[in-house]
Formats: sequence, structure tokens, C-alpha cells
Amino acid sequence: MKTLQTYIDKLNKLNFKEMYNNDFLLTWEKSDDELEAVWTIAEALRYMRENNISTKVFESGLGISLFRDNSTRTRFSFASACNLLGLEVQDLDEGKSQVAHGETVRETANMVSFMADIIGIRDDMYIGKGNAYMREVSEAVKQGHEDGILEQRPTIVNLQCDIDHPTQCMSDMLHIINEFGGIENLKGKKLAMTWAYSPSYGKPLSVPQGVIGLMTRMGMEVVLAHPEGYEVMPEVEEVAKKNAAASGGSFKKTNSMAEAFKDADIVYPKSWAPFAAMEKRTNLYGEGDHDGIKALEKELLAQNAQHKDWACTEELMKTTKDGKALYLHCLPADITGVSCDEGEVDATVFDRYRTPLYKEASYKPYVIAAMMLLSKFEDPAAILKKLEEKGTPRILK
Amino acid sequence: MKTLQTYIDKLNKLNFKEMYNNDFLLTWEKSDDELEAVWTIAEALRYMRENNISTKVFESGLGISLFRDNSTRTRFSFASACNLLGLEVQDLDEGKSQVAHGETVRETANMVSFMADIIGIRDDMYIGKGNAYMREVSEAVKQGHEDGILEQRPTIVNLQCDIDHPTQCMSDMLHIINEFGGIENLKGKKLAMTWAYSPSYGKPLSVPQGVIGLMTRMGMEVVLAHPEGYEVMPEVEEVAKKNAAASGGSFKKTNSMAEAFKDADIVYPKSWAPFAAMEKRTNLYGEGDHDGIKALEKELLAQNAQHKDWACTEELMKTTKDGKALYLHCLPADITGVSCDEGEVDATVFDRYRTPLYKEASYKPYVIAAMMLLSKFEDPAAILKKLEEKGTPRILK
Amino acid sequence: MKTLQTYIDKLNKLNFKEMYNNDFLLTWEKSDDELEAVWTIAEALRYMRENNISTKVFESGLGISLFRDNSTRTRFSFASACNLLGLEVQDLDEGKSQVAHGETVRETANMVSFMADIIGIRDDMYIGKGNAYMREVSEAVKQGHEDGILEQRPTIVNLQCDIDHPTQCMSDMLHIINEFGGIENLKGKKLAMTWAYSPSYGKPLSVPQGVIGLMTRMGMEVVLAHPEGYEVMPEVEEVAKKNAAASGGSFKKTNSMAEAFKDADIVYPKSWAPFAAMEKRTNLYGEGDHDGIKALEKELLAQNAQHKDWACTEELMKTTKDGKALYLHCLPADITGVSCDEGEVDATVFDRYRTPLYKEASYKPYVIAAMMLLSKFEDPAAILKKLEEKGTPRILK
Repeated sequence: MKTLQTYIDKLNKLNFKEMYNNDFLLTWEKSDDELEAVWTIAEALRYMRENNISTKVFESGLGISLFRDNSTRTRFSFASACNLLGLEVQDLDEGKSQVAHGETVRETANMVSFMADIIGIRDDMYIGKGNAYMREVSEAVKQGHEDGILEQRPTIVNLQCDIDHPTQCMSDMLHIINEFGGIENLKGKKLAMTWAYSPSYGKPLSVPQGVIGLMTRMGMEVVLAHPEGYEVMPEVEEVAKKNAAASGGSFKKTNSMAEAFKDADIVYPKSWAPFAAMEKRTNLYGEGDHDGIKALEKELLAQNAQHKDWACTEELMKTTKDGKALYLHCLPADITGVSCDEGEVDATVFDRYRTPLYKEASYKPYVIAAMMLLSKFEDPAAILKKLEEKGTPRILK
Repeated sequence: MKTLQTYIDKLNKLNFKEMYNNDFLLTWEKSDDELEAVWTIAEALRYMRENNISTKVFESGLGISLFRDNSTRTRFSFASACNLLGLEVQDLDEGKSQVAHGETVRETANMVSFMADIIGIRDDMYIGKGNAYMREVSEAVKQGHEDGILEQRPTIVNLQCDIDHPTQCMSDMLHIINEFGGIENLKGKKLAMTWAYSPSYGKPLSVPQGVIGLMTRMGMEVVLAHPEGYEVMPEVEEVAKKNAAASGGSFKKTNSMAEAFKDADIVYPKSWAPFAAMEKRTNLYGEGDHDGIKALEKELLAQNAQHKDWACTEELMKTTKDGKALYLHCLPADITGVSCDEGEVDATVFDRYRTPLYKEASYKPYVIAAMMLLSKFEDPAAILKKLEEKGTPRILK
Repeated sequence: MKTLQTYIDKLNKLNFKEMYNNDFLLTWEKSDDELEAVWTIAEALRYMRENNISTKVFESGLGISLFRDNSTRTRFSFASACNLLGLEVQDLDEGKSQVAHGETVRETANMVSFMADIIGIRDDMYIGKGNAYMREVSEAVKQGHEDGILEQRPTIVNLQCDIDHPTQCMSDMLHIINEFGGIENLKGKKLAMTWAYSPSYGKPLSVPQGVIGLMTRMGMEVVLAHPEGYEVMPEVEEVAKKNAAASGGSFKKTNSMAEAFKDADIVYPKSWAPFAAMEKRTNLYGEGDHDGIKALEKELLAQNAQHKDWACTEELMKTTKDGKALYLHCLPADITGVSCDEGEVDATVFDRYRTPLYKEASYKPYVIAAMMLLSKFEDPAAILKKLEEKGTPRILK
């Protein structure tokens, strides 16, 4: 694609009018056209930045970031996206506590949103809570707007919850699309989303769930592999099954990493905690049972340690398609001999894929900005055109 | 009011030239015209935002926020106001310590202000200290500007001190004005500023003090009610008395919540700590007497608990004018059965007034921005006109 | 200098083309022309701000601040510089830990830099580490840019390291230049960089090192004075010697504060920790030897206490040139009887020089902004001219 017009032409063929004034919470709530609109605008924004065309669509306005877990990468991606469009980031630091609910959520959401256009939320710690919390915030500010309290309706971008990690998976997918030369080339490709051993504990399920919930929509042969006991949420598996059936692909499960990797075109080996254990942990936190939490942690680390053979080794990579499957990771990875003694991936494998991995990550600010643009503008294609016509340089020339 | 011109016409009738290059520290240091200028510009800015007209008057510049107490709402209001006008917020985090004084205050104030246009300060913890600190900072940067160190004089906005909470009370008042259809309709209206029970301890006196110091200027019948022992600063009561005399209203005190509520048009039931106790606490902190502080806290909680009947119940609300007094609160409120077992207000009362309460809060960013505009521009009416003529959209269209 | 053109004419006579797309890490890596370009642009930016001409050259973009030590002043100077040019500051908080190395540094540097134009780093705690860390970050993002991961190469500004403190010393020097009426007037002037007693422990060596590494380039007679045992890095002394030889000045060492002050035109009395002790501390931290660190701290405080006579007293000041040497300090100073019982400087001396000291500090935001402008624009003179022609007011008029 060489000109902005190419992106605009593509947008004009898609139906995404439901995204206007709406949140982005789960990829499977969005139509294929809507997802493609996100990727198209993400690429258009990147094209414009590469060509020094300012994409500042807001003269003022806040992008609120609400992180209920530590984060550097997602925080910077969100901040970059806001900055790209002209919003100023304000962090709402509520800590990791689960206390804020009901009245408090409604009130706080409104009190911080008088000039907020976007609220980005990361809340991935507790099963059954994160996505629900986002919907609670969304409902509160929607009501606030309808009641005339807020001049605008702030829309929500899910920056990772207990169910999905849409900004990550949409970036992963855009990377795949570009590596394979287009969505149309993905049909029949085999993607292995597999568990991998990590010495750390309690990694969120949102990545594997987000991956099987999204990647099954492209007609690919998606395999979810993990040791027994590392099941993900059953309802997301149901989503994956339906997606595969609809897209002409497949969704299979296995307890063998080797089987998943065999002839795979794409591999995504990554640690996560068992769904059941995460649910138990959520309850223990709810009960304030700190001894129980410690005991569970110990138990889970011991359970992990039984599966150290689940690693993305050079040997396993050789069994993939031509020995050259595209290796994906949301980063940071646990690299054997680098960031830990034994981890998710061999150092030589990681090293060989470093540049593509960084590129995979580089889509995220643009994907987030695209989600914002689609939620705040009724006709984003016209806006992009107008920005090109204005031609304000991002850096003065 | 339908056009920006209406606001500009109103401004042109007011005398507020002393506000230029000046701080906003206490409402009673300002003339009636000056207060009305704040409300008029606040409304004009809101009108412009609603009509998608950018009010960015600064291309660059910092708004420094200096919070010596935790805050989410005021922090966001200040950040929103800065953003609305084009200033970037930088937080100066000094913690709650009282150590910074004299040389250190002068130096730090200058060192952070090389590009600061506004300094917003919240310092409400210690009696006799907060407002004094603001004046110390103000003096330091004024001198710095005169000495050629600072290219501009950063002006101070009091975001809550030990004496007054002008941005809150000015927002409360703007809400009242709009609810009653204009300042001219307030004469003779009865406003009850009453203490209410809260299970928490040591809430600042700045709201009741700010309310009696401001609301007595409109010819209203202002009643301050609290249990014995919960007196506010005597000098602020003096201000209230003088105001009432000058405005043709009244200022009365009572130890009966029922008496205050009886036939009231407006009620503001809210917990605060006794002035004498806050003064004692300030001294204990000064002496580093942690045991003394703990003992005082215990004592105050016990004292509070003797007055659990001071609550804004449905029964009490029925005794107000037509049973429909306007219920005010600076939020968050201690809601009985919601945020605590027994608190300031019945859940059903709070619920009925939620939308107006949120609206009351929604004025604050505009009030703060108006204070900034009045302190930084000699002819704000001309600036508003120019912004309208430029017609830069806040969100690109 | 009266017009912007004067600065532009001066710039056009200087060769600084190597600064484009490059870092600013050590002053002695830069040519005389390059240093003069920094001062010229710093002054030009200040002139423009004083004349209400916006110098916003970025419509969007991030300035990342990475402080591995607490900081208020430098943080605000960096934020002010970013704001002046249109970049939004994002803080990358890595704490004081030394853990981040190798793979982690490379990855984090790239992950936060997708939209970063500038990275400002302060890392002065550990001998042999700070400057090395900056080069590691620089190399990582340079590679990231070459690999097509980053659309732009973020350049690094050293905001203080274990070796140099270039933004401080360049500001100090600009202050000296202005006080003495031009670089051409500095030849033969005596500058005393001397140790002074402070009751605190472990102050960085970067200021004295930066001063002798920079001030020896102007043909001045630079004297470094300290008690035995407070040596600075030998390699920086070598730099100072070579500079002095090349500039026609001199660089001498002494263990007598009186000798250094005698007939000095400029004095810079300031505490620092012995190089050898800092090196030892770095190793103790590396080994996690907390008892060792505590023991060392105690030992160093005792060592300091033996040199309480190293203070900038009124008596000593009288021995300087006409008793009126220019007193410099990077602030905050330990002022006897004000910020401590016995410290670096008499209160009356400090008081007399307060305004010039604050002015000295006021150059820093402009110096940092100048370094940024020189690293991001191939022809900064043309950019300044264009900004003047555009004539966008910083504050709307």
C-alpha cells in the first residue's frame, strides 16, 4: 500500500458504524468488518506518522488510564496512542484492591471523566471481575453522559482483562497478516497456542484466551495445547469452536506440545495459570485468606515445575513447517539461561526472532489509537483524509 | 444563555481587573464582581466545549499540582482545567510532611516554576499552615519573577486549604445559581450547612468554612449547625457575619440539625473535625508525638459516635421547604448502608439527588479554568471572542 | 543581543552537524562549536519565550524520563524542556535497582520508544554503570530504528551519570558566560572547584567531574581542591589536563581550600563522596552486602566530619578576587544554620548570591531543550527562523 487513499478506499468498503460511540471489550463482540477497520486504521496511522503527517484530532481532552496491575509496556502503548491523537494521559491509580464497587465505581468513573474522551482499563487479576468492572465503568459514564453530567461519553478500551487481551491479540494478528502477506493467505495455516513452563506464577489467561478467540476467525487450524490442569475458560473455548466452524478453520485441543508444534506455521508458546486455580485465588483474595493464597502459590509453582519439558526449544522449532514457524510472544518472555534458568523458550530461538517480536509489539500503539478513532468519530475515513489535506507536519520541517 | 456573546456582554459589565496576575486563595478576598466573573467564564468555557470550540490559550506551559494530601477528584479537576486551556500538568510530590519551609519552599517553588504558569496547591491537613504555605509559595515566585529568574509569574489556585475550599464552594454556588435560576433568586433562601455523623475521622473544616464564607454573600439565610464541640474557625464565622450584614441576609448558629433543616431551601450535611481538635493535632504532628496522635484519633472517633443522630434522613428531608430542599455534598459522602453502616445521609436521599450532585461536581474543572484565565489574561472577554473567531474544533470535524 | 537573527547568524558560523541524530552524553565528546551551538540555541529559545513566540516543533511525540534516583529539579527541567518543544513526558520508573541489564534493557528501551523522540536518563548512583547504561539504551534504540521497529531514533540526553552532569555544567557555564560578558572574557580567570563539608553522605561525583571536564576548555585557570581521600575519577582529571593544555589555561590540584579560593574569580564549593568509596559501594550493592553498605556509610560520614573546616565562609570569600568571586552551586546547598548545623556555605554568603544562583539554575530547561533541538533537527537555525515567521503566540493575545 503506497498512499493513504488505499486505506481510505478499504475503509469505505467496510461496515463498522456500530463502533461509533462504543467500547472495545472483547474481539468476539466485533464483526469481521469491524476488526478489519481497526487494522486498516492502525496501518493508516502508521503510514501517516512515517510520512510526518500529524494525526492530532483532539485539541484537548483526557485519556484516562486505569491499571489495576503493574504495567510498563501497555501503559506506554496507551500513552503513545493518546499522544498520537492529541489526548493527555491521566493515570487513575486505584491500586490492586478489589474494594471499589457499586456506588464507588459509578461515582469515581463520573468524577474523573468530565473531560475524558477515552478510558483505558487493565484489570486482569481476578477471574470474573475484570471485564465486569469495565462494563460497570462503561455503564456509569454512559449514564452520566445521558444525564447531562458529562459533555461527552468516554468510551472504554480493554487493555487486558480476565477474559481477553484485545489490544495484544489484535496486534499479534496484524503482525501475522503482514508476515503472511494478507488475511486472504491465512486460510488453512496451522497456529499452535501452547502453554510453556515459567518459573513464575499466576500469569493471566487473557492472552491464550484472546488468541483462540480471535485467531479461529481466519480459517486457520488453531491448536490449543497445555498440560492437564491448565485449562482456560470453557466459555472462551466455545467461542473458539464457533468461530472455527464459521470461518472454515478448526479448533483442536491437545495435551502434547509436540503435536501442536508439528508442521505449525505459527507458534505462540507462553505460560499461564490454570483457570480453576485463578478462580480459587480470586475467592481467597475475596475472603482475605492470605495463608490460603500463599499455600496456593506454592502449590501452583510445584505444579508448574512438573512441566519443565514444555519449552520452545530448537528441537521443537525444527518440527514446525520447514522448521521456520513464525514465533510469537506478547513479551516479556522467560528466556532459558537469560531471564531465568529454565523458561518458555531457548535463547537462540528468541534471539532469531527478536526483530519480528519487537515489530509484533510495535503495532499495539497504532491498534489502540485505531480503536479510539473508531469509537470517537462517525466517519474516520473522512477524518484521515482531512488530516492528510491539512498536512500539519508531526515534526516541524 | 444562547451565545458566547451573552457571557462576554456580562463580563464587560464587571470589574475584575485586580484578578489579573493574582492568586485565588480565599473567596472573601474577592469582590462580588470578581466572583461573578469566575462563574461567567466557567459557564462560557462550558458553552464553548459543548459547542466543540477549542479553548486552548496556551501553546506550551506547565500547571504544577502540589497536593499535600491524597486526592483523586480535585487532582482530575485541576488536570482537566489545565488541559482545557493547554497547560501540561506536572505533579510536585512532597508527601504529607510539614518539613518544607522557609528557604526550601522559596527554592523549590522557583526551581520547578521556570515554565510554570499556574500552581495549584492542596494543603488542608494542618490548621494555620495550609493557606500560609500557599502565600509563602506565591511570594517566592512573585519575587522570582521580579528578580528576572522566572519569565512569568506563576499564580496560585487554592485547591483546598485549612481555611477555605474556594474551587469547591464556587462550584457548589454555581450549581445553586443554576438550580434556582440566577443569583437574583437567592435572596431570602435558607441554606443549612450542618455537621453530619461519619465513622471516619479528621475531615477538613475547609468545606463548612468555605460555605459560610461564600454563601452568606447572596442575601441568603445561612444557618451553621453542629453538635457542641464542633466549632469552626472563629475568624471565618466573623467573615460570615459581616457578609450576611452586607448582603441583607443572615448568619445563624445552632446546635440542632432539625432547626437548621426546618424549611431550608438548600441543605449541606457533612462531617468535619472540631477546630480545636485539628489545632491540637497540628501541634502533635509538629512535636512528632505519634502516641498523642493515636490517642486523639480514638478520642475524636468516640466523640463522633455520640452524634450518630446527626444524619440526613428521609424524615429530616421532609421538614425542608416542600420536602424538596436541594441536597448538596462535596463528595464522596458517607452513605448509610452503602459506604458505611451509619453515615451522613440515607441511601434513598443520596440516590434521589445523585444526578444533581454529579452536576454540582462537574462545574469544578470549569471554575478552576476560569480562575486561571482571569489570573493570566488582562482581557479574558477579548480572549474568549478571539477563540470563537478562530473556531478551532476541540475534536476534529 | 536583540533579535533572533543575531542567534541565527551565530549558529550559521558553527559546525555542529554531527549532533544531528546523536546523543549528548559527555561534554568532552563534543567540539567547542557544538557546545557553543547548545548555548546559542538555549539563549534563542529563551529569547523567543520572553517574546511570546511558541517554539513548539513537535505536534506529538514522547520525551521519556528515566530517573534511577529521586529528583525534583532535574525532572522539572526535563519536563519543561519537553513541553517547550511540544513533547509529552512519560516517566519510566525502574526504581533504583541495578537489575535491568542486557536483554531487559534492550527490550524495555524498544518497547517504550515506539513514539519516543527523546530519552532523558539520570543514573548517577553507581560508578562505572550510569554512563554505560545510557550507551546501552542508546545502542538498543538505534538498532531498533535500523531494524524498522521504531519509526524514529530516540536520542539520549544525559541528565546526570556517574561521570558527567552535562546539562548542569552547561547551564553553569552559560551563567558564567553571561556574568562575565562572553566566552572571550574567560581566558585567565581562576575557577575553584572545591570540596565542601556536608553532613550527608554519598553525593555524586558528576558535578565536580563535569565542571573540571568542561570549564578547562575556556582558557581558565581551573583548580580542583579537596581533602586527601576525596579524589575524583582519574580519567576525568586526564580530560581536564588535556583540555587546559589545548585551551591555553591550566588545571591544578590542591588539598587546600584556602589556596583554591585565593584570588579566584569563580568558586564552586560542593560536597561529594570519594571516588574509591563510591566504587566500593557499587561493588557492595552488586553483592547485596547491606551490612557492608551500612558500615561504609558510617565510615564515610566519620571521614566527612574530619573536614568541617571545608566551608565557604565569609572569611574565605574575602580572599577571592576583590572579595567578590561568583559563587556557584548546583543546588540544593547545605547551608550552615539553615538546612543543617554545619554545611557547605555560610548563610550570609548564600543569601547574597541567591538571585544569581537561581538564574544559574534557570538555564537548565533551555540547555536541555537546545540539546534536543540539535539532536532532532538537521538545520535548527532554519527551524528557529520558521518559528519566528509563523509567530504563533505561546500565550494567546
